[in-house]
Amino acid sequence: MSKYKIGLFGFGCVGQGLYKTLAENSLDAEIVKVCVKNKNKQRSIDNDRITYNPSDILNDDQINIVVELIDDPQAALDIVRKALKSRKAVVTANKKMVAENLDELIALQKEYETPLLYEGAVCGSIPIIRNLEDYYASEHISEIKGIFNGSSNYILTKLFQEGKSYEEALGEAQANGFAESDPTLDVGGFDPKFKLSIILQHAFGLRLHPDNIFNWGIQNITDSDIAFARERNLKIKLLAKAYYNGDSLSAVVAPHFIDSQNPLYHVENEFNCVLINGKFASNQTLIGKGAGSLPTGLAVLSDVVALTQGYAYRYRSSDHKVDTSELVEVYLSAKDIDAINWTAFDTISEKYVGNDYGYVIGKVALSELSSLLSNGSPDTNLVFTSGSQKEVEIPSLTYSYAS
Amino acid sequence: MSKYKIGLFGFGCVGQGLYKTLAENSLDAEIVKVCVKNKNKQRSIDNDRITYNPSDILNDDQINIVVELIDDPQAALDIVRKALKSRKAVVTANKKMVAENLDELIALQKEYETPLLYEGAVCGSIPIIRNLEDYYASEHISEIKGIFNGSSNYILTKLFQEGKSYEEALGEAQANGFAESDPTLDVGGFDPKFKLSIILQHAFGLRLHPDNIFNWGIQNITDSDIAFARERNLKIKLLAKAYYNGDSLSAVVAPHFIDSQNPLYHVENEFNCVLINGKFASNQTLIGKGAGSLPTGLAVLSDVVALTQGYAYRYRSSDHKVDTSELVEVYLSAKDIDAINWTAFDTISEKYVGNDYGYVIGKVALSELSSLLSNGSPDTNLVFTSGSQKEVEIPSLTYSYAS
Repeated sequence: MSKYKIGLFGFGCVGQGLYKTLAENSLDAEIVKVCVKNKNKQRSIDNDRITYNPSDILNDDQINIVVELIDDPQAALDIVRKALKSRKAVVTANKKMVAENLDELIALQKEYETPLLYEGAVCGSIPIIRNLEDYYASEHISEIKGIFNGSSNYILTKLFQEGKSYEEALGEAQANGFAESDPTLDVGGFDPKFKLSIILQHAFGLRLHPDNIFNWGIQNITDSDIAFARERNLKIKLLAKAYYNGDSLSAVVAPHFIDSQNPLYHVENEFNCVLINGKFASNQTLIGKGAGSLPTGLAVLSDVVALTQGYAYRYRSSDHKVDTSELVEVYLSAKDIDAINWTAFDTISEKYVGNDYGYVIGKVALSELSSLLSNGSPDTNLVFTSGSQKEVEIPSLTYSYAS
Repeated sequence: MSKYKIGLFGFGCVGQGLYKTLAENSLDAEIVKVCVKNKNKQRSIDNDRITYNPSDILNDDQINIVVELIDDPQAALDIVRKALKSRKAVVTANKKMVAENLDELIALQKEYETPLLYEGAVCGSIPIIRNLEDYYASEHISEIKGIFNGSSNYILTKLFQEGKSYEEALGEAQANGFAESDPTLDVGGFDPKFKLSIILQHAFGLRLHPDNIFNWGIQNITDSDIAFARERNLKIKLLAKAYYNGDSLSAVVAPHFIDSQNPLYHVENEFNCVLINGKFASNQTLIGKGAGSLPTGLAVLSDVVALTQGYAYRYRSSDHKVDTSELVEVYLSAKDIDAINWTAFDTISEKYVGNDYGYVIGKVALSELSSLLSNGSPDTNLVFTSGSQKEVEIPSLTYSYAS
């Protein structure tokens, strides 16, 4: 008999992979019950291990590890709460649930002295949380950034490498299982924002609710934006960034122009990349598949193994402040560029007005971006050209004129 | 008073960095004694913490962690042996000592139930051993390869990017502190072989003494070899590789031709890169500084922190076999190419003879390479074009002729 009895919620790709792997493995852990929703689906497990009632797992005293792999963040939170209160260790891969409720989840872990692990929630197969907790525990990290969303990166790769339209590329990503049928979380920059919020806690000891992080996605990208980048030998990549700006921390999710000298330029398709800049290590780059059943499955399995070894996150705390007054340089494009609220800009360095496309490049406070975009025309697109952390210098344009 | 009392051997760059960091840190560990060799050097620590007698640390019952950072592998082994036998946990960064004595070091750890950690011995700031032990513990790894030596990579970068001669580039690497005054360990491929030997244990559970791994370095590289690569848009990188060849494992250190599609192509200067290929994670890439006081210091510090948390390597074992009969495809160049022992080759696909430079490309068994090279002319250079694990396809040459 195994020492570790696992109750599993959800039996999708990742859940099935975990079940199979644990059955074949020599680990001292086995899945004894699986809670699913749909009674009419055929399952590849013995009927006596299946239940439709969460209490059959949550009230079962022999179960000491709960693995939560369902889609619904609210139901997931409910399960994780009850499991921790019953002192069952928990593994989850639900980034939205973790990011939005991390304060409560940390408090519950402390109160009930029961660990919650969620490596699978952040950048698939890249072991970022564990490394931040352990290996980089004594590092002075100055910046973490990267490509945290495989779906958007896949779409951007198709746009730039194969000249596909945004709709074509999105459809292809959906057909390949890299994007959900409602792609808003991915292409709108919400998914990488959840991940960034979790990373902020483990890298800097800073708790920042995702609602308080500015995010913009790739949903409004046009052929003109891509042409603008191509003419300058740039690509556009959706980046999540957290970095020191003086004594404060800045955090943002937005598309960025990237040149070929940047390691992120070469990260394509569904791959994710995390760049860490630290006092000792200098630049570190971690690249791996950011999503999918096997990469996420590896992260979940690794968390299960860690729980059997008594592992728990330490949650160092800090008194970091967040700064949103920082000026960032952005490229803003729209069909009718003159509809933009000019007063939001601190300075404008370039403006181009065409028949069906125009853009401005200028500096604006991070805190002004949300209202600037919500008051602009609905086709407005935004790409960062540089922040305090410069990614690329836009070469000045011969056809620009002073604003 | 700290719970963890550290005795430090060696007070070079890494040792001094560790001392400073621990003094500034909130860790429950402090360096109470430092053993050094040279009595005439000025030191930046209190005199009463300095000793010249190893026994002052090894026989001190209050010291529970020994950090060994001296150059001499034999003296280092002696210290580590005695420390483990006194049940003092040990951190070392000496790759040669660990690689050549791992069997004994594993046995000592088991017998005295005392851990030895050595993250700093393998690829500087890249947390490879810890990730293999923990995160990839449940992964089925099929291949690990990469650039494991910063000095050689720095030299190759100067050769390819700046057109410097080998002697110039080596001198520059030495001036920058990336290469020792005797550079044989680095440029001869011995240093990456020690690291590969250690990695084989943690990735595959395979103990393979470095003497049983074929290594060739970049010491004989000529302008003609570089021109050959340049004409084909290739670079040469010194790679360490371990991979499954059917049911057996292959392990080798040698220069390889690399094309621009390969992530290793873009890893330059003193950076190291580790590529991991696994069933779940697919391709993972880790890039970071491979040497230097701060990157190594981070790894050592991280090991110290791990020891204070009761961490130890698990040393999974396996019954893997090693295969040296595998045919690898190589490019062999020399002034007098006809002096080469042709009978060692299984097949030769290309041969070029010039006045002052010639080469052959052909297939040869891994086990034949050592004698082939030792019997060739002293200026013979070797570059892998592909093995079972193909790195690049050499385009056929218009001026080649059938052998």
